[in-house]
Amino acid sequence: MKIDIEQAVNISKKFITNKLLESGLDGYVVGMSGGIDSAVSAALAVNAVGAEKVYAVLMPYKSSSKDSVDDAMEFVEKFGVKSEKIEITPMIDAYYKDTSQINKVRAGNKMARERMSILFDLSQNMNYLVLGTGNRTEIALGYTTWFGDSACSINPIGQFYKTEIRQIAKILGIPESIINKAPSADLWEGQTDENEIGIKYEQIDKLLMKIIDENISSMPELISHGFDKTDIDHLISLINRYSFKRDLPEISQIGRKNIPKTIEIKE
Amino acid sequence: MKIDIEQAVNISKKFITNKLLESGLDGYVVGMSGGIDSAVSAALAVNAVGAEKVYAVLMPYKSSSKDSVDDAMEFVEKFGVKSEKIEITPMIDAYYKDTSQINKVRAGNKMARERMSILFDLSQNMNYLVLGTGNRTEIALGYTTWFGDSACSINPIGQFYKTEIRQIAKILGIPESIINKAPSADLWEGQTDENEIGIKYEQIDKLLMKIIDENISSMPELISHGFDKTDIDHLISLINRYSFKRDLPEISQIGRKNIPKTIEIKE
Repeated sequence: MKIDIEQAVNISKKFITNKLLESGLDGYVVGMSGGIDSAVSAALAVNAVGAEKVYAVLMPYKSSSKDSVDDAMEFVEKFGVKSEKIEITPMIDAYYKDTSQINKVRAGNKMARERMSILFDLSQNMNYLVLGTGNRTEIALGYTTWFGDSACSINPIGQFYKTEIRQIAKILGIPESIINKAPSADLWEGQTDENEIGIKYEQIDKLLMKIIDENISSMPELISHGFDKTDIDHLISLINRYSFKRDLPEISQIGRKNIPKTIEIKE
Repeated sequence: MKIDIEQAVNISKKFITNKLLESGLDGYVVGMSGGIDSAVSAALAVNAVGAEKVYAVLMPYKSSSKDSVDDAMEFVEKFGVKSEKIEITPMIDAYYKDTSQINKVRAGNKMARERMSILFDLSQNMNYLVLGTGNRTEIALGYTTWFGDSACSINPIGQFYKTEIRQIAKILGIPESIINKAPSADLWEGQTDENEIGIKYEQIDKLLMKIIDENISSMPELISHGFDKTDIDHLISLINRYSFKRDLPEISQIGRKNIPKTIEIKE
């Protein structure tokens, strides 16, 4: 189910503008990894509220690729946003005393949460909102850290699939080096999302559109569209296993109603 | 609107048991502050799944009260759970280079998020869930850190008001030193919740029950129940201002439906 990308981009720019107005705050702080998602999210914010209201924060760990920082800085210079680099190595290494022994997935989650906590700390100090950078593909597959990279004040790109993010990146003039590299969480040398998930994003997104947006739930029908049964089973298992990451923590229901969003008292 | 406390406690114990079974994991890790909320939450888990499946983590900062650690250890010994103490001072001080200058509220949020990230890191290593410790009063007033102390896998006490937590603490045999001290986020010497909010919990909870559970939205009617207009206005402003903390980050809606919780494919 294709959408009109230019129209959707305009909706997200208005969303960024409106949410800042509603909040009464002064701008957006965004974690800039050197990847395409944070670049697109930040570029949308620059288009929506102006470069002077977007603050990019680079938060490399010692094992992060030097290219990631270079790519992030190329974005910063091209789009004219203010930026700051905060190494997360001291905080992470203060926790894991023996960093040679740590499990990569655990460490990756700890780093994602450290970055989140830095972004919210800066946002509080600056009176800014934290701009989210998660796309629909990773949200659907749970390929995120709960209360880490998925945590933000608002997310302008959360309904765009990864392959659409690439199209938007071209429209917005994101540097080629960012567009062309293989998507990666940058946790270790040579890591790529597609190797970890085991399926190419082109294929993942086509399948997610059939399953989620077109609501096709018949295996024979999905296979007739050219998808592989193993891939279908794998993606469905990810969607279902990590569904909790798309939700709030569950609270024990003892018979009280939910707290309403807002309450109005009549004088 | 009073509830049957013993019945509600039984519901929450079953909730703790069932969520662990559903997850297929091995137990609960819980941040133990020395306060009454984490003690009650942990005690419910001990009653539900047994002390050997509850792992208490003490995470003091250098300015935390020594009494807090002592109280937490008294709980640990009385309830027979395993425990670990992880000082968060190195991680926090690695971030704030000049800790004498930092804003207390910012630092408090950074600490809450550090503790959350440690609990999730341990939970991943142990194959445990993170047990939540937030009560209904603080959730309603937004007296929490978003993606910090409010973040957990499941929360067994989120529908109990603070004053009910005190009743449950007595039923469960929580040590008197924990029950009797003034509730505090323990960010600085002498800090208490009630001084910060400016109203006693007894009064807050009575008012929240009228407004939320009994759905009374008329100022004259609330005043006729003996509440102060200034208190009512203050609590309503907190409920409304911090409503975002009870929700997921808002995603720009470009015309796609939400990703369903789970998907079933027909073979």
